[in-house]
Amino acid sequence: MHQTFDATLEINLLHANQEGANHNREHFDAWGITCLNIMSSPGAGKTVLLEQTLAALKDKFKIAVIEGDMTTELDADRLRKYDVPVIPINTGRSCHLDSKMVAGGIHTLEQQYNPTEFDLVLVENVGNLVCPAEFEVGEHAKVALLSVTEGEDKPLKYPVMFQEADCLLITKTDLAPYLDINLDRLADNVRQMNPHVPIIYVSAKTGEGLENWFNWVTKAIDKPLVAQV
Amino acid sequence: MHQTFDATLEINLLHANQEGANHNREHFDAWGITCLNIMSSPGAGKTVLLEQTLAALKDKFKIAVIEGDMTTELDADRLRKYDVPVIPINTGRSCHLDSKMVAGGIHTLEQQYNPTEFDLVLVENVGNLVCPAEFEVGEHAKVALLSVTEGEDKPLKYPVMFQEADCLLITKTDLAPYLDINLDRLADNVRQMNPHVPIIYVSAKTGEGLENWFNWVTKAIDKPLVAQV
Repeated sequence: MHQTFDATLEINLLHANQEGANHNREHFDAWGITCLNIMSSPGAGKTVLLEQTLAALKDKFKIAVIEGDMTTELDADRLRKYDVPVIPINTGRSCHLDSKMVAGGIHTLEQQYNPTEFDLVLVENVGNLVCPAEFEVGEHAKVALLSVTEGEDKPLKYPVMFQEADCLLITKTDLAPYLDINLDRLADNVRQMNPHVPIIYVSAKTGEGLENWFNWVTKAIDKPLVAQV
Repeated sequence: MHQTFDATLEINLLHANQEGANHNREHFDAWGITCLNIMSSPGAGKTVLLEQTLAALKDKFKIAVIEGDMTTELDADRLRKYDVPVIPINTGRSCHLDSKMVAGGIHTLEQQYNPTEFDLVLVENVGNLVCPAEFEVGEHAKVALLSVTEGEDKPLKYPVMFQEADCLLITKTDLAPYLDINLDRLADNVRQMNPHVPIIYVSAKTGEGLENWFNWVTKAIDKPLVAQV
């Protein structure tokens, strides 16, 4: 995150954000909702993953999406086709969602729906492999995506995201044959940052690994497991 | 950029950064150096582009690199193989280079080399499609990269980077046949944000388009053209 300004101010900013995140989580807990914070670089496949997750799980669980983007409702529109509540948040020039913005989304959920009916809130963060990792929004688990096209060195170069992740999806595995990437070395690099994080390999195109992801989500919705994530 | 804090503070922060950037540019101008600020998401191909640029142009021009990364000198080590000065800057938790950090790099250049001998300083920014676009570092032109794997909607969703770019490279074009991407629509989306920016299509793998990029850089080094970039 930006470090140009005073360190005390930065600590205060993160502290205030954390207080808001805790408050958001109290709401989710009171309503029996599991909240997942989905993060990655731009174009790693967050939205298509959410599309496929909604298609697979929306009849089994009651799901809502809080959709963060700097501008436009392009992603929100894609997800609305799955007939679930999609609450868009435009962050303007901000490079990440913070807990205050997500509190606004929670307020909308509370005003327009009965939140106690919901099992799962998926928060799609702004595409950014750096800042979103530092700003908790009230989630029960952080899910990070890394596309195979981004390269095997990224866990070493962007450590915070990989250290913070409770689940890591390696996406676009169908493209691996066309790239100079060593998936074993990528996994080793992830393990250096986060020895025990579950790594799930997926391809939105071939469907590879999606069942593993759906199983992980299903377990995360099972409340007693969330604390252990 | 982060907007959680006070708007006045944010304006002050950007103002102080701009003053530092102007000062850096005065140094570059005094030494007859053209400075390019290279920006993109993680994994769009900034480092390989710099490798190929150094290989092609280092005998024609005297080049130095200021290499920004949150952690590690992995990229710096890749570029040192081309036998040019590479000055690494680790930004720690910061998501972009600012003018103060780059001033440190300029100071190193001044201490360890004769800066008047140099024609070109390439600044590789932290991989981030959001924040680097807002923090000028003293460059004469901003170069943005977007990989075809990131998707055609990105100029609409991350407008600032595309509005600010003086040159846009669409990278990894060799992967386009394996993706559901419409390159014409991508170009239209770029044009909505920045009607006249040069768009150069490149593939580090096949070499497609690299000559066009080298020509653009060569023109940018020709001082009278820089002001028109």
